[in-house]
Amino acid sequence: MKRFHKRDFPTDQVRRFLEPGPIVLVSSAWKDERNIMTMGWHMMMGFDPSLFACYLWEENHSFELIRRSKQCVINLPTLDLVDTVVGIGNCSGADIDKFEKFGLTAQRGSKVEAPLLAECHSNFECRLYDGSQVGKHGLFIWEVVKAHVAIAPKIPQTVHYRGEGKFMVSGPDISRRSRFKPGNL
Amino acid sequence: MKRFHKRDFPTDQVRRFLEPGPIVLVSSAWKDERNIMTMGWHMMMGFDPSLFACYLWEENHSFELIRRSKQCVINLPTLDLVDTVVGIGNCSGADIDKFEKFGLTAQRGSKVEAPLLAECHSNFECRLYDGSQVGKHGLFIWEVVKAHVAIAPKIPQTVHYRGEGKFMVSGPDISRRSRFKPGNL
Repeated sequence: MKRFHKRDFPTDQVRRFLEPGPIVLVSSAWKDERNIMTMGWHMMMGFDPSLFACYLWEENHSFELIRRSKQCVINLPTLDLVDTVVGIGNCSGADIDKFEKFGLTAQRGSKVEAPLLAECHSNFECRLYDGSQVGKHGLFIWEVVKAHVAIAPKIPQTVHYRGEGKFMVSGPDISRRSRFKPGNL
Repeated sequence: MKRFHKRDFPTDQVRRFLEPGPIVLVSSAWKDERNIMTMGWHMMMGFDPSLFACYLWEENHSFELIRRSKQCVINLPTLDLVDTVVGIGNCSGADIDKFEKFGLTAQRGSKVEAPLLAECHSNFECRLYDGSQVGKHGLFIWEVVKAHVAIAPKIPQTVHYRGEGKFMVSGPDISRRSRFKPGNL
């Protein structure tokens, strides 16, 4: 599988990739365990600090790794990985090592212990910013502390889940920049 | 502008339209005021009850209408409304009535006082489910109490914001249903 050549990306601009709502892969590590999960329930919450929230189901094997380590990496898969995305959602890290099963390469991050996935277009290293709603709602609020983004393509073709096994594939970009008030971009 | 013919839709399936991450229009009403705002920071949080979270900036004129009324309607605009979406984000309800300015039709909802936008593909009536994080994070957790969805098209062409005036337009749907474990759909 293709690995992307990446460079550092400003954390206050990660909305470019995350705000459109793609399915992401969440990688985590705690003690001698590591895991990957598929996740679609997330949103941006701030620019600086760069805040990102997500819902995680406590039944997922990753839940405890993420809750205990207070870290994760949000990885952005492209359309060619859609079957890997589905496969990762179909099995449990309690039974197998998903990195091995799916041939994904774990790379070291610079700010967190959770691994980056080399085969994803972008990797966002996250530290827990507010865990107060984890118990009640499964809601984690993260600070993106480091962003790695592929040099090319500038705009990845992403997949966006609709439920029932269906994904929307991202289409073309259009610009309405000239119609915005500068402060509202 | 085109108005859609709609029917009731199961609230536990609203992810079909909201999980892919589209820009939405939030309509609200409080006392003799009403307003519309453009919003892209949101996510699904549950099926039954149907939970949906969003971040709202307190500087938006809609913020107080929504916070006080504890209600809103999430409206799903299609690509043909993109300039309306931008225009709504560029002006303030403190100065003008956006329904009049943009020629949008306010329809009565069945469960909330906030109006539905007839020109949007879908309308989701919401009641505040948990407002405990509004003060700290601008985070509203809503229960979708009623959903109205256009009979056609089944899959609307939506716009997904990337910042800097750029939108991703939704592309084709693909199905991987046969690859999912039934319980994981």
